[in-house]
Amino acid sequence: MHESDPAETHDGPHGYISNGYISNKDAYLKRLRRIEGQARGLQGMVTDDKYCIDILTQISAMTSALESVALGLLDDHLNHCVLHAAMAGGAEAEAKLQEASAAIARLVRS
Amino acid sequence: MHESDPAETHDGPHGYISNGYISNKDAYLKRLRRIEGQARGLQGMVTDDKYCIDILTQISAMTSALESVALGLLDDHLNHCVLHAAMAGGAEAEAKLQEASAAIARLVRS
Amino acid sequence: MHESDPAETHDGPHGYISNGYISNKDAYLKRLRRIEGQARGLQGMVTDDKYCIDILTQISAMTSALESVALGLLDDHLNHCVLHAAMAGGAEAEAKLQEASAAIARLVRS
Amino acid sequence: MHESDPAETHDGPHGYISNGYISNKDAYLKRLRRIEGQARGLQGMVTDDKYCIDILTQISAMTSALESVALGLLDDHLNHCVLHAAMAGGAEAEAKLQEASAAIARLVRS
Repeated sequence: MHESDPAETHDGPHGYISNGYISNKDAYLKRLRRIEGQARGLQGMVTDDKYCIDILTQISAMTSALESVALGLLDDHLNHCVLHAAMAGGAEAEAKLQEASAAIARLVRS
Repeated sequence: MHESDPAETHDGPHGYISNGYISNKDAYLKRLRRIEGQARGLQGMVTDDKYCIDILTQISAMTSALESVALGLLDDHLNHCVLHAAMAGGAEAEAKLQEASAAIARLVRS
Repeated sequence: MHESDPAETHDGPHGYISNGYISNKDAYLKRLRRIEGQARGLQGMVTDDKYCIDILTQISAMTSALESVALGLLDDHLNHCVLHAAMAGGAEAEAKLQEASAAIARLVRS
Repeated sequence: MHESDPAETHDGPHGYISNGYISNKDAYLKRLRRIEGQARGLQGMVTDDKYCIDILTQISAMTSALESVALGLLDDHLNHCVLHAAMAGGAEAEAKLQEASAAIARLVRS
């Protein structure tokens, strides 16, 4: 959980809050906590022998929620890491793009 | 959570273990607990600004694990509910198959 | 292509064409011809250096069209072959369901 | 790689060699022709009432082939259009990345 004081932990020498690439950490954490809750809910459904189709519906919802988080993070990544590497150019840019392409392929195929 | 005593709750009058359609509840619960742990792990990765590509790799793994659970449950469902309904025949069989088809479509598209 | 004489090979007592499990052959053939046309269209787009994003949009549309055909065929299959096997019961029913489950898994993962 | 002099190679006697972003047009065209052939093959299978599971296997193979083409084109796109836009920077870079993200989301969800 994210309970630390942002002023204490993220202020760098240049004073900006959060030195990471993730655009809206709290929103992601909220979505991931919800996904964690769905995983817990699924255990309850299995334990209680809930109707299979209802369990599958929950799994589809959870998969979509996960995909949506992944696409958001990928977007942030392209807009920060990849963009900066591209501006710097050279081998670093190429390596970052290759890495992003591989991650996209895993998402498309998973 | 799975806290009940199996000896107490699953032995029916006909003596078989588990009266539900799910073939191996404990195995599913174990997999779902692992998925829940992955969801918690993702929150830690976001909080700690872990490298985006590593987070995406984790999400792909989690999505695959979820899909795999869904396919297992669907298999159980086809082998129990749908098979029984099919044997009974008539409108019930048709309804069960339609329902299964809709669930499959959601899985394929999610 | 469909060049056989329907009157000779498919006419049943109720006059409908097709003795197979596929519910509406002509509709499937029409959709598959459209998909074939999309594949040809993609070649034109690549040859003409059309904008990549537009090509990707076409591929997504084509993938969705293919998935939709697959889900329709699977539905027909469950309602005919699997239903009949289930009614017959025994090893045949089990084998058909296992086969269907494997096909579903390939669709979900592809 | 694109190492030829653009002025020299775009209007060659054998038709132009390619001034676009696509890294290996002939390879893509070959793959798309194969996919077109698969779409034609599927029509034959439906016409001949081939076994449903075999048709579904073909569709899964075709979907994977299409996905693979899409991932290749996306890779080319990121390495050319997006990289160039990123180097130029500003609103153009942002717009290109947004467009690429939307295309990736369509691929992941299709």
